[in-house]
Amino acid sequence: MSSDKPAVTVIGLGSMGSALAAALLDRGHPTTVWNRSPGKAEPLVERGARLAATPGEAVAASPLVIACVLDYAALYAVLDGEADALAGRTLVNLTSGAPEQAHEAVGWARERGADYLDGAIMTTPPGVGSTEMMFLYSGPRAVFESHRPTLAALGDPLHLGENPGLASLYDAALLGLMWATMTGWLHGTALVGADGTPATDFTPVALRWLTAVGGFLTTYAPQVDAGRYPGDDATVDVQIAAIGHLIHAAESRGIDNALPELLKAAMERTRDAGHGSDSYASVIEVLRARKEEG
Amino acid sequence: MSSDKPAVTVIGLGSMGSALAAALLDRGHPTTVWNRSPGKAEPLVERGARLAATPGEAVAASPLVIACVLDYAALYAVLDGEADALAGRTLVNLTSGAPEQAHEAVGWARERGADYLDGAIMTTPPGVGSTEMMFLYSGPRAVFESHRPTLAALGDPLHLGENPGLASLYDAALLGLMWATMTGWLHGTALVGADGTPATDFTPVALRWLTAVGGFLTTYAPQVDAGRYPGDDATVDVQIAAIGHLIHAAESRGIDNALPELLKAAMERTRDAGHGSDSYASVIEVLRARKEEG
Repeated sequence: MSSDKPAVTVIGLGSMGSALAAALLDRGHPTTVWNRSPGKAEPLVERGARLAATPGEAVAASPLVIACVLDYAALYAVLDGEADALAGRTLVNLTSGAPEQAHEAVGWARERGADYLDGAIMTTPPGVGSTEMMFLYSGPRAVFESHRPTLAALGDPLHLGENPGLASLYDAALLGLMWATMTGWLHGTALVGADGTPATDFTPVALRWLTAVGGFLTTYAPQVDAGRYPGDDATVDVQIAAIGHLIHAAESRGIDNALPELLKAAMERTRDAGHGSDSYASVIEVLRARKEEG
Repeated sequence: MSSDKPAVTVIGLGSMGSALAAALLDRGHPTTVWNRSPGKAEPLVERGARLAATPGEAVAASPLVIACVLDYAALYAVLDGEADALAGRTLVNLTSGAPEQAHEAVGWARERGADYLDGAIMTTPPGVGSTEMMFLYSGPRAVFESHRPTLAALGDPLHLGENPGLASLYDAALLGLMWATMTGWLHGTALVGADGTPATDFTPVALRWLTAVGGFLTTYAPQVDAGRYPGDDATVDVQIAAIGHLIHAAESRGIDNALPELLKAAMERTRDAGHGSDSYASVIEVLRARKEEG
């Protein structure tokens, strides 16, 4: 197999790992794959991938090894004994985990003579290969830069910093934002749906509104960094009054109000902490305060 | 005062009402204003507004009357006795309230011979006048269409339907989405902030991620309407596993986890209702189910 693109190995062929390997093949990278159950490799082999017989053979095939397995325990189970193969290579670990696990993996890789980047994939398998989708990386910048052109085959690679835990930490923070946003959208969809509005009518308006909300976040971010929250636009007191309308409307339509009740309680704690005339960004003060309270 | 633009009256000069009047003046509409405390009108009079001495005089000055006061009680207190002036005019009520209050106001306006549109302003006062900002209206389409060019001075006017409660209902639903999104963002900001990442570093990544989340909502909306939630991309079971990482990371950094704990509980109820292999959109089934459960 000849190519001007660097060879890459992909360990783990779940739906995400298979999408990673497919994107590399699409961009012309000689791609070696390995999976515990080799049947998963068949569609990739048909598209030109080479199936390695063992993890060691897979690692030895390429200077860059991308792992996307169930968890860190699975990663170690597969690669623990492959120190000889790993030496001098770069392991990019896209397995989901905690920031502390990324820190541990740095030491584990160093013992085996491998460079290590931790990463997080901010899309679903069908989005892999799109330059619009973010892939987050943390670890040594020089290692990231040397593999950036290859990583760009998977999505838009962003380097968050040298701290190896940053990709996992951002991943958790962004998924939390996603779940909160999706649940807020579902609550609103249930509310308007109770009066006969289809989700497909409400959602384009909701998406446009999210763009405006993004503008509020841009306004609030420097307030958070400064620890000062001028309530020029809409104060916590005003939001507390307004959320009552939502709770009442949803209550009378039989919709579960646990989410808006929780949000209202957070706003009230923020007001009680002296931020009634401040912007919504001041809610971060009570989110950070659990230890002092408990 | 001569102008080719229709005359407009604005009742209520809080920060939002003042922004509305200013936007109308900017677009060249002869603008009459009234406020309970007339001092609020001074900056607008300096810009060319006419200050009416009474609500009746204000209403009589223009075919289109825009009201933006504290609540519906304040609206009625100001305009209840002005039936003669209101007859034959259009009242656009941008006062915040519940859908049921909009329905009542239709009858109230009809008794006084006035056409009525209910509306909701999806921006803060500094955003008024921008064509990017949504103004939501509900009520008779013909009435909306006849005043659309004037309403376009305030922002981008969207007509949601003839049901007069729709603007208030969308307003509540969209604000709920906003509070959920802002709180999810603050939780994530607190999380990455605990390890030293400034909000101004995290937020551009969060905004880009929100665009991807918007894509998920577009995928999920027809699933909600169809009542079928194929978990092609990421199942509820997978999300339950993933939110554990967030809760653990935030817990160990002393951050209040009430929001992700609530979201996890909603996912678990969704799984227990038989949707473990479905998409996140299936969470709407448990949000709608409160009455059956209670």
